[in-house]
Amino acid sequence: MCGIVGYIGNNSAKEVLLNGLERLEYRGYDSAGIYLLNQDGQFGQLYKEQGRIAALNDKVNAAETTNMGIGHTRWATHGVPSVSNAHPHQSASGRFTLVHNGVIENYQELKADYLADVDLQSETDTEVVVNVIEHFAQTENLDGKEAFKKALAVVEGSYAFALIDNQTPDRLYAAKNKSPLLIGHGEDFNTIVSDAMASIDITNQYIEIHDGEMVTLTNDEVVIENRDGQEISRDPYTAALDANDLGKGTYPYYMLKEIDEQPAAIRRIIQEYQDDQGQLTIDSEIIAAMQASDRIYIIGAGTSMHAGLVGQALFEQLNGIPVEVHVASEFAYNMPLLTEKPFFIFLSQSGETADSRQVLVQVNELGYDSLTITNVKGSTLSREASYTLLLHVGPEIAVASTKAYTGQIAVMAVLADVLANAQGRKLDFDMETELSLVANAMETVVDDKDHLHEIATQIFTDVRNAFYIGRGLDYYVSCEAALKLKEISYIQTEGFAGGELKHGTISLIEDGTPVLAVISQKDTAAHTRGNLEETRARGANTVVITMEGMERQDDQIVIPAVHSLLAPLVTVVPTQLLAYYASLDRDLDVDKPRNLAKAVTVE
Amino acid sequence: MCGIVGYIGNNSAKEVLLNGLERLEYRGYDSAGIYLLNQDGQFGQLYKEQGRIAALNDKVNAAETTNMGIGHTRWATHGVPSVSNAHPHQSASGRFTLVHNGVIENYQELKADYLADVDLQSETDTEVVVNVIEHFAQTENLDGKEAFKKALAVVEGSYAFALIDNQTPDRLYAAKNKSPLLIGHGEDFNTIVSDAMASIDITNQYIEIHDGEMVTLTNDEVVIENRDGQEISRDPYTAALDANDLGKGTYPYYMLKEIDEQPAAIRRIIQEYQDDQGQLTIDSEIIAAMQASDRIYIIGAGTSMHAGLVGQALFEQLNGIPVEVHVASEFAYNMPLLTEKPFFIFLSQSGETADSRQVLVQVNELGYDSLTITNVKGSTLSREASYTLLLHVGPEIAVASTKAYTGQIAVMAVLADVLANAQGRKLDFDMETELSLVANAMETVVDDKDHLHEIATQIFTDVRNAFYIGRGLDYYVSCEAALKLKEISYIQTEGFAGGELKHGTISLIEDGTPVLAVISQKDTAAHTRGNLEETRARGANTVVITMEGMERQDDQIVIPAVHSLLAPLVTVVPTQLLAYYASLDRDLDVDKPRNLAKAVTVE
Repeated sequence: MCGIVGYIGNNSAKEVLLNGLERLEYRGYDSAGIYLLNQDGQFGQLYKEQGRIAALNDKVNAAETTNMGIGHTRWATHGVPSVSNAHPHQSASGRFTLVHNGVIENYQELKADYLADVDLQSETDTEVVVNVIEHFAQTENLDGKEAFKKALAVVEGSYAFALIDNQTPDRLYAAKNKSPLLIGHGEDFNTIVSDAMASIDITNQYIEIHDGEMVTLTNDEVVIENRDGQEISRDPYTAALDANDLGKGTYPYYMLKEIDEQPAAIRRIIQEYQDDQGQLTIDSEIIAAMQASDRIYIIGAGTSMHAGLVGQALFEQLNGIPVEVHVASEFAYNMPLLTEKPFFIFLSQSGETADSRQVLVQVNELGYDSLTITNVKGSTLSREASYTLLLHVGPEIAVASTKAYTGQIAVMAVLADVLANAQGRKLDFDMETELSLVANAMETVVDDKDHLHEIATQIFTDVRNAFYIGRGLDYYVSCEAALKLKEISYIQTEGFAGGELKHGTISLIEDGTPVLAVISQKDTAAHTRGNLEETRARGANTVVITMEGMERQDDQIVIPAVHSLLAPLVTVVPTQLLAYYASLDRDLDVDKPRNLAKAVTVE
Repeated sequence: MCGIVGYIGNNSAKEVLLNGLERLEYRGYDSAGIYLLNQDGQFGQLYKEQGRIAALNDKVNAAETTNMGIGHTRWATHGVPSVSNAHPHQSASGRFTLVHNGVIENYQELKADYLADVDLQSETDTEVVVNVIEHFAQTENLDGKEAFKKALAVVEGSYAFALIDNQTPDRLYAAKNKSPLLIGHGEDFNTIVSDAMASIDITNQYIEIHDGEMVTLTNDEVVIENRDGQEISRDPYTAALDANDLGKGTYPYYMLKEIDEQPAAIRRIIQEYQDDQGQLTIDSEIIAAMQASDRIYIIGAGTSMHAGLVGQALFEQLNGIPVEVHVASEFAYNMPLLTEKPFFIFLSQSGETADSRQVLVQVNELGYDSLTITNVKGSTLSREASYTLLLHVGPEIAVASTKAYTGQIAVMAVLADVLANAQGRKLDFDMETELSLVANAMETVVDDKDHLHEIATQIFTDVRNAFYIGRGLDYYVSCEAALKLKEISYIQTEGFAGGELKHGTISLIEDGTPVLAVISQKDTAAHTRGNLEETRARGANTVVITMEGMERQDDQIVIPAVHSLLAPLVTVVPTQLLAYYASLDRDLDVDKPRNLAKAVTVE
């Protein structure tokens, strides 16, 4: 979603801001901007561009060097992507400059109440807020900090703000509610960032900011105040990100790199969750909490929700605990009737997904136990849940998630295995061995790129739509495969339960419509083949993704045999590569599909 | 799906068969055929055509008059639609002629075991079966009936068969397993039909045939035998269909007629479920069974499953019983962990949906209570469930379901209301009054056709894809609205939870993509409007369907205010009409979309 980076210190701000915005680029954006202020508060320089950051770079590089500034990448929620809607926004007099993540719900009311005379330049809620700050400074004769405080008291909604007041060129202001915000702390400098990644190359020391808090930063000081104006003391933590993980090396796109990293990621998960004796292990408190529960509720959005569907099968079949999987944004406002002892699992690569956090806040209010499975230590969902399990798959930069999906499933497999042991349920297979075989099988698939590229070119060129079908676990993979293809190739793709296609949607099948069937489960293989046959009878261009031992002549994609419950970890890999090549063939930006954000931090 | 009609009697067979096939046309088909045999067994006449039945009509009308024959409409499962794949199929010598609904699972094995020397003309499993019959007749010197029996013993799968043996021109044979089959009984004639509608204009007396039974029919006799060869005696029942209901009157399409019938259908449901005192009432056994259950599982496919989602909200909110909704074809092979006292509700317009029946068979084996809500009295799902509630909306002929969807929801609303009374839960509204208001509101919407046609033309012309979004109940309606548009206009449409769109799928939004938001629920209205705004910022052509009291300026479609829990009954109506006009504008056959079947009687 939108990204924020601010800097105040002894070095040049512009390099830090441009680097930071580039680091945030992967989160998805449609415009970007930077405001630089020099030490006498006289020469504020504002730069905004629509589109890629490269354009902004040239202008900012030529700018005068200053020691402070704020920058922003924007993903449009209100108003179209445009230079005028891009951040930073300034107050009418030019005194205040603000960047903002989140959504201000009462901006129409604020406008009516305070800004009847102000001529706004943009359609954004942010410009309203910065003018409300100026309104209070002018009408009530307040200094910048007090005016900001007063504005925060009337603003409703979600926000991470970074503010510059030209009259106090030795300090930055920030505030947070619901949207992520951290303070990066270094020697003789401080940063304001929406994600530690934005300034990870200059510091790994970060200070959490909580909802309702306001911060004042100078070169060497960070003052945090709560809503009542009390100062809060809080130590920094060390961010686990490694700046070296962030490059894409010789790969043309992060997505391809991340697809290739999956076998190693699975092996790393096995290692990270091994004890000294080489046995899989999970924090015993988590196991105890799950054992005490009568139903597991898995909450996720997009790809994470699809991983949750596979988790449902794992926990139901290996642990005998009923599981429900819910779309976070639906659960938040239409909570189903819960059982007496629910246990919640939140899946989120970034740990910042606003829709999921909305649910977690309610779950915490109800006093239920929760577990966040995430890639980012110290993320909001991790901090606020009862327990956390990390994916250990390394930073995922491409917007389209790949290794986080397989990582989530692998961590849930480990969890289900350890829980089964604790329950005294004897599994008839060894999870470590089977996960190792999965990693090997993934390697075979990623080595088969040319073949997969050929298939992608052959079936996806010039089509408007496509379908993935399967049953059970194969259906869940079909949902994820369809989302992947859709989000980066813009081919409208749906994942369908094989048996459900004929109840309406089969009318869309015409000559050449690609229909890909995932067939890894013995009980339903014949049925899915029957469903595929029905589409072929209507002209579909069919592809079968199946497993050794179940293949028939003419099946195009055959993965090595793995345990049927873990098959989704492998069958999904060819679908990731098919999506990648479909996008590449269409000359699209694989890593940064239009309209999309990496971490969706608004609801 | 496929349709069967056979006739033996004193009148001309060809008129009965052609009428019957036309009655079955609405079920969806891609080819059709008829076989007529005269009384000396000499002059069998076989006619097959791809496409509409009109073409077949001309040929058959010119045929010699006979007193027996069998006919078939085919919906391709194995092999493309073509004349050679159309039914009836004949054995190599021409002696046996067979029509078949269902899927023979072991036809490859049968071919290998018995037909090594036979040169098959088609790709169908049916031709294999008719030749297996001939094989037994020839190699074991059996009469036709015994050869048929022997073939039935080796055939695996689902079937409804009607068979003619040229050597016994005074009788027809039939057999059934899993696929629907009925015997129509009249004075001096009998019919074999897959659906009572096929011969409703000549008789309303029908005899059920059960799985594993075989039937021999002459002009005046019906002999039913079970697998062990024992004769079964069974009385006919009176079918509730009225032949007069089946015309479309002055309407250009059945779908439009059926959309218009919805207000009357809701009123009829209120009446049918009223007791003498005008109070809503439901069979007390059903109420007791639901009260005793700890979780309701609603099973459906396609539109019925979407109605189930609304049912979930009704039962959870009005009765406090947790509900799960499942896609029938998924549930059948991946049954979730059930609670101790589950209660099953099956939703099926036709009562013949094979995917749902597959589940019901398992539920019966497990010994759980079940309720079928269906439009067709005496249908398979009705007969086999513990209880039945009828929709009373009259026959639905258009393939795209409209009044059955609203009827299912209305019957569930009545059920939830009566159950709440029994539970001693005092509702804060009167269900009868609110349903009456719904009927009035529906009338307002169907009277607004010109306006809806304008909107459809404006947003759907020349687009490849579209989206409906909403949250909660509005999401469920969005799923149904998307399916309706998709199945008859072939525009690839998805129904999305408003909050979920940004987790990937929003990358498909481009200039002019239609995004329609359903907004009838106060708690989530602002959020859905925010989600719609996100798509508009990316160029989407947006339409709001909302309710009086919640509308904003520029909202295009505003339905009269109704109770929020019943809003789906009304918000869905404009989406049905939008789909209708999108299909009409594209010059498509609204009532018979390609590839689709009305009642899906294969898995």
